[in-house]
Amino acid sequence: MRLTSFTDYTLRVLLYLGARGEEAQLATIGDIAGAYGLSENHLKKVVHHLAKEGYIRTTRGKGGGMELARAPEQINLGKVVRGAEEDRSLVDCLPEGGPPCVILPACTLPRILANALGAFFAELDKYTLADLVRPPGPLVKIFTAPSSRR
Amino acid sequence: MRLTSFTDYTLRVLLYLGARGEEAQLATIGDIAGAYGLSENHLKKVVHHLAKEGYIRTTRGKGGGMELARAPEQINLGKVVRGAEEDRSLVDCLPEGGPPCVILPACTLPRILANALGAFFAELDKYTLADLVRPPGPLVKIFTAPSSRR
Repeated sequence: MRLTSFTDYTLRVLLYLGARGEEAQLATIGDIAGAYGLSENHLKKVVHHLAKEGYIRTTRGKGGGMELARAPEQINLGKVVRGAEEDRSLVDCLPEGGPPCVILPACTLPRILANALGAFFAELDKYTLADLVRPPGPLVKIFTAPSSRR
Repeated sequence: MRLTSFTDYTLRVLLYLGARGEEAQLATIGDIAGAYGLSENHLKKVVHHLAKEGYIRTTRGKGGGMELARAPEQINLGKVVRGAEEDRSLVDCLPEGGPPCVILPACTLPRILANALGAFFAELDKYTLADLVRPPGPLVKIFTAPSSRR
């Protein structure tokens, strides 16, 4: 049971931007990829998604980059994860390119799993990005350490 | 965000056995694979796991097969899913064969996700197999329909 890499990277980008605070320079995809040791390609779609959802603001050109478009307290983790996890069906009742699960018309499992997933998100809804980046010190120390620039 | 196929098939095998009731003949892997249109190979490990966990009882030889080892009311869904999902880390902080996530020492996300996963399982804990197979009529109708024997 795992969140997609896309969701994982979405959270990592927000964490990076949130930890550095408002006074920091704009961050580039290269900065973030370097800090986490990830490929820039993996992050491009994530950054596009975050900009589209209004979580970050990007500036083009020399000296350009990205920053949070809202305070960390205004970025709800449940909402972020819901938005990033495109497919939230825990079991594959309707597999792509295959026949639906034969018991689908009589099966109550999807409803029960939906309840459990509701409880999962209700718990995440209690947190914001601020809970991930306060205090920012330890994270900033990691992000600015020379060894994290890979 | 998805449960593994292993967990999905674990639930399907229990559903099949639970819906048919105590009076039914022992079921073979072939019966269950045929009913769901799944390969027998996929189910072998699942059946072995369920027997090891004490959910089913298997009998070898001619006329052999499997049946539930407990009443459906005694089979808790949260426990079944916890037992089947070997890896319950929602994000991959410690990828196999790769370096750990660089912010791991300072990151509070794993704790928050663990809380959310706890809420997910607490919800599943409210249900047993009986909630999936009562009333059994509609499921049995599907399992015994000629079209489900593929």
